[in-house]
Amino acid sequence: MTTTATNTKQFITAGQILEHWQGHRNLTRRVIDAFPEKELFEFSIGGMRPFARLAVELISIAGPGTKGIVESRMEAYDHEKFNPKTKEELLKRWDEETETINRYFAQISEERFQESFNLFGQYEFPVYQNILYFIDNEVHHRGQGYTYLRALGIEPPFFWERFPVL
Amino acid sequence: MTTTATNTKQFITAGQILEHWQGHRNLTRRVIDAFPEKELFEFSIGGMRPFARLAVELISIAGPGTKGIVESRMEAYDHEKFNPKTKEELLKRWDEETETINRYFAQISEERFQESFNLFGQYEFPVYQNILYFIDNEVHHRGQGYTYLRALGIEPPFFWERFPVL
Repeated sequence: MTTTATNTKQFITAGQILEHWQGHRNLTRRVIDAFPEKELFEFSIGGMRPFARLAVELISIAGPGTKGIVESRMEAYDHEKFNPKTKEELLKRWDEETETINRYFAQISEERFQESFNLFGQYEFPVYQNILYFIDNEVHHRGQGYTYLRALGIEPPFFWERFPVL
Repeated sequence: MTTTATNTKQFITAGQILEHWQGHRNLTRRVIDAFPEKELFEFSIGGMRPFARLAVELISIAGPGTKGIVESRMEAYDHEKFNPKTKEELLKRWDEETETINRYFAQISEERFQESFNLFGQYEFPVYQNILYFIDNEVHHRGQGYTYLRALGIEPPFFWERFPVL
């Protein structure tokens, strides 16, 4: 084995990261669903946002961000605009974004992943870093959601179980 | 633009995911460091492990997992073996693992990322999924650490700040 050319070896394909991301989104959806209605919108620790508001942030980033990359649109994102009042409303929108992500992600070319883009007119990074940020930010906030659930005495879904048996 | 060949377009190189991972590890190191000594080993929410134990889990997975992939060794991992008593001891080991990861990760070939491997004799997945799991698991537990810090009234490091200005 050799240590040369580490920087140029392919790690994963676009299809693989999309599947990985949607697997995470499936888990996050089940974490949202694990909250009782009231606690989803009200429970918090240490002055942090309730999990519904964290989920709204994720919704405001994932689909709009992917669409923004494809259309080279740099509008600021707005997580105040969507203001769901029920879990059902939140989950419905979550599922709509799943489709938006699939539709637009498929249109990003290999070259484009490496190009710099000023996401939301604010974050100037290569597109692949923007995409990784969407995923990391979701895993990060979901980790907070797990802590909320544990504090509420509710068993969260298994972290490694990304796709339910349907 | 076209939606064809989504599955085979390169998303990122090995060098890019390694840099991304080490950026996350740098942030996690600063989260460990943000805890007061006592709370690092004792504070918890909802019956979860204190952050020092979560950090020990990450240490038991990252370096040993990467080395295990390269050497095709499938021993079970053991996060009971390392039992640090101080933050300093924990951070020292954290930094040693940084080097281990760099050394072994560079030896994984492009083909190997796509091959199935029975990580720790327990998790049979393609190598790239094992690596993504190392990263995701860290971001997940660190999100719990952020919640602990907030509950303690301590401001955590910025999530997007991966490399400190040295």
